[in-house]
Amino acid sequence: SSSSESEYDYDFFWRKDTPLTKILDIDTNTKDSHVARDERLLRLTGSHPFNCEPPLSLNYQQGFITPSHLHFVRNHGAVPVVDESEIMNWTFTVEGMVDNPLTLTLKDMIRDFPQYTTPITLCCAGNRRKEQNMVLKGKGFNWGASGVSTSLWTGCFLWDIISKANPSKKARYVWMEGGDDPAKGPYGTCVPLHMVRDTERMIMVAYKQNGEFLSPDHGKPLRCVLPGIIGGRSVKWLKRLVVSDVPSNNWYHYYDNKVLPTMVTNKMAAEEDHWWKDERYTIYDLNLQTITVYPENDERLIINETNESELYEIKGFGYNGGGKRIGRIEVSLDRGKTWTLCDIDYPEDRYREAGYVDLFGGTVNVCDRMSCLCWCFWSTKVEKKLFKSSKDIVVRGMDISMSAQPRNMYWNVTSMLNNWWYRVAIQPGDTADEVKFEHPCIANKAGGWMDRVKAQGGDILDRTWGEDDEDDSGPKVKKE
Amino acid sequence: SSSSESEYDYDFFWRKDTPLTKILDIDTNTKDSHVARDERLLRLTGSHPFNCEPPLSLNYQQGFITPSHLHFVRNHGAVPVVDESEIMNWTFTVEGMVDNPLTLTLKDMIRDFPQYTTPITLCCAGNRRKEQNMVLKGKGFNWGASGVSTSLWTGCFLWDIISKANPSKKARYVWMEGGDDPAKGPYGTCVPLHMVRDTERMIMVAYKQNGEFLSPDHGKPLRCVLPGIIGGRSVKWLKRLVVSDVPSNNWYHYYDNKVLPTMVTNKMAAEEDHWWKDERYTIYDLNLQTITVYPENDERLIINETNESELYEIKGFGYNGGGKRIGRIEVSLDRGKTWTLCDIDYPEDRYREAGYVDLFGGTVNVCDRMSCLCWCFWSTKVEKKLFKSSKDIVVRGMDISMSAQPRNMYWNVTSMLNNWWYRVAIQPGDTADEVKFEHPCIANKAGGWMDRVKAQGGDILDRTWGEDDEDDSGPKVKKE
Repeated sequence: SSSSESEYDYDFFWRKDTPLTKILDIDTNTKDSHVARDERLLRLTGSHPFNCEPPLSLNYQQGFITPSHLHFVRNHGAVPVVDESEIMNWTFTVEGMVDNPLTLTLKDMIRDFPQYTTPITLCCAGNRRKEQNMVLKGKGFNWGASGVSTSLWTGCFLWDIISKANPSKKARYVWMEGGDDPAKGPYGTCVPLHMVRDTERMIMVAYKQNGEFLSPDHGKPLRCVLPGIIGGRSVKWLKRLVVSDVPSNNWYHYYDNKVLPTMVTNKMAAEEDHWWKDERYTIYDLNLQTITVYPENDERLIINETNESELYEIKGFGYNGGGKRIGRIEVSLDRGKTWTLCDIDYPEDRYREAGYVDLFGGTVNVCDRMSCLCWCFWSTKVEKKLFKSSKDIVVRGMDISMSAQPRNMYWNVTSMLNNWWYRVAIQPGDTADEVKFEHPCIANKAGGWMDRVKAQGGDILDRTWGEDDEDDSGPKVKKE
Repeated sequence: SSSSESEYDYDFFWRKDTPLTKILDIDTNTKDSHVARDERLLRLTGSHPFNCEPPLSLNYQQGFITPSHLHFVRNHGAVPVVDESEIMNWTFTVEGMVDNPLTLTLKDMIRDFPQYTTPITLCCAGNRRKEQNMVLKGKGFNWGASGVSTSLWTGCFLWDIISKANPSKKARYVWMEGGDDPAKGPYGTCVPLHMVRDTERMIMVAYKQNGEFLSPDHGKPLRCVLPGIIGGRSVKWLKRLVVSDVPSNNWYHYYDNKVLPTMVTNKMAAEEDHWWKDERYTIYDLNLQTITVYPENDERLIINETNESELYEIKGFGYNGGGKRIGRIEVSLDRGKTWTLCDIDYPEDRYREAGYVDLFGGTVNVCDRMSCLCWCFWSTKVEKKLFKSSKDIVVRGMDISMSAQPRNMYWNVTSMLNNWWYRVAIQPGDTADEVKFEHPCIANKAGGWMDRVKAQGGDILDRTWGEDDEDDSGPKVKKE
């Protein structure tokens, strides 16, 4: 390890966790019976395939680095079985429009290319999809707001590998294909070559997560990690890289990870193939997201003369695509009439300030770039009495390009990149001096203000989020 | 010229314009008495310094390439006098954190570095500022919606120059300083080095605009051109490039071209310096903008039984920052309840498809990249009768990262990057079968729906744009 470590407090860098995984009963009769898992993860698609997020507050409580066993998972089929003895001999290829096609083992990759370790936030494009499905069910399953996690990934730049293969000047995309075998063949997708080349983006091929060799759910033994880009492009169990002048022709690339225009209905999407072939609707960079964690859903607060001037800390996290720092996060207690500027903590910057450090066999190199590839944490303190006169807490963030989270939902068939203002409703509690908080909805169970509003016959999308029985100018979604 | 030209129709590439400039009376008693100008340009800050935009419809009518004499201008002071004989000997330096400081003449620059010609849209960060000033006057002067223009620029990559100077690994910014001398010293600002390095961004040092040597208002003889980045960073009359690990310390860099949080009042901005020193509020990339040109302001339309089923073509343009294509543009006639998808034409793609072509002493190299550095043109046709039941036409665009234009204005002290939905109001005309269209406001004169709503005592920012006299949930702006 680096001699400079003694000059700096590196305690924040990494906290060793005790793995809380074991083979669970629910998995024993599936093809994933070889995979140890954390039973606290919320399974969003039944027992198999494994798609899960951690409970929102539990995720937040872990701090900046999410333990690997609590990291969200998106699998399309069974997890490949890879024996410990096969790890270093795992083979992948670099093909297509290159002068020098390559076949590499993981051992070659570690030996032949500089290795780095860096914190990266990954996020599923479907995060917060359940809110859209509450309005009208689209094509995807119900993610809550916690399909986002941060790990220290170790590996090399994907660009170092691609450039060694000497790509053609006409090359525009890098296709990636996994060693899994779900319904439509191995999962594959692609990423524009210019993103791979951009060192600010730190697009990696990684073999360690949080200092350990990859677990089966996270791509054992080798995966791509694309920071700031929707999780669906970070291909696991990497077997093939194909350099091309056109986007990937993989089924999953065409029929997933797009945001179709809002007026495209489920029926149109099913019947009209051209929507899926229009590359303008393919999503790469994540959009800006801020989510409130505290107050939690169903949290109660007694507010009376003795404590109404006390401060309550509203807090949560935010993340963004394309490496862009979230420059401001604002909270409103009056439905957007006025806003309060939040404090933001960027733990990633402490890695940046640390300079070069050896960690897990790679160099921590955050100091080499200006980009922000990780989530940040925001908070603001308000007098408790404000909750008695307010109907909700809404939060929005903006980045350096001033792209703001929208007030209104942009419903779309795949219900991806849903980032309208995260609204926590404030409702009367059980006693006159109690208030109760409601999130929009909760992963894997009923509850939240959307359920309540729908039960009351309200329209979630109207300008008062369905709370008042008056005409509105909110968006409408065609049922078909 | 390239032999391949015969195989392709290059008529679209460039239309030779007759310069419509002369020394105007209004300039004869100012320090700009040496500068010939087009009298159709709208002067936004009196006679001097020269800050102007073309009339909106006239701008649109020019098509993809704006004639140089109609290109918007932003000057901070007098335009430097540069004799024709001095052009090739114009000198600039590369200094700071470099191993190999350089002093170059324009002649050196043309001889020593590869030259390119490429279409680039420039836009002032203050475009559409007048709309914000109508709500509450901030720090800047009134731009309409036409502070945006597209030219063919010829010159070299700024990165080619910087890399020849061999910048330090710790370098993070390139400062740029002009040869002008306004109130606070030569205008200067900076750009992050990683943007300069990114060939997708095509950041240039240019000496020709639309095939002619630069005119005085556009930087004669040499300027920076930063596509996708606010116009205020494209320093004119370039004299110094300074490589640094910190942002520029120029007065204009600190006290301009920032978007402060919306709750920062004019008074707070004047008294609390820390807002201006927070780099998170410095803007580089433009945000996404769509503007309706037709119907024009005060356009009238007779709609009756004989023509109500005829189609009317609503049309305008759009632009975005950071090289990101505008993937969709949507129009609503019911205040955002439902949306229609517009057709979009991207003339820049025809330059991309053309491959390499020699033009004006540089290689057209759009084919080398995937980025979109130019405006696009959108349109949609609607039955005229819809205007009889609709109160307005609103338009919004989205890019590949799904950042959407907001419904609500984000008021800020410098009133920059104003990109809320562009709303054209539909009002009764002079007869029962006539409708009249109103833009928000007009550069340099009264008119538009904002003037009318204010006169009627309405609140521009409420959810009905001040049209109805009911409570609202629109944003509020503190007067102090």
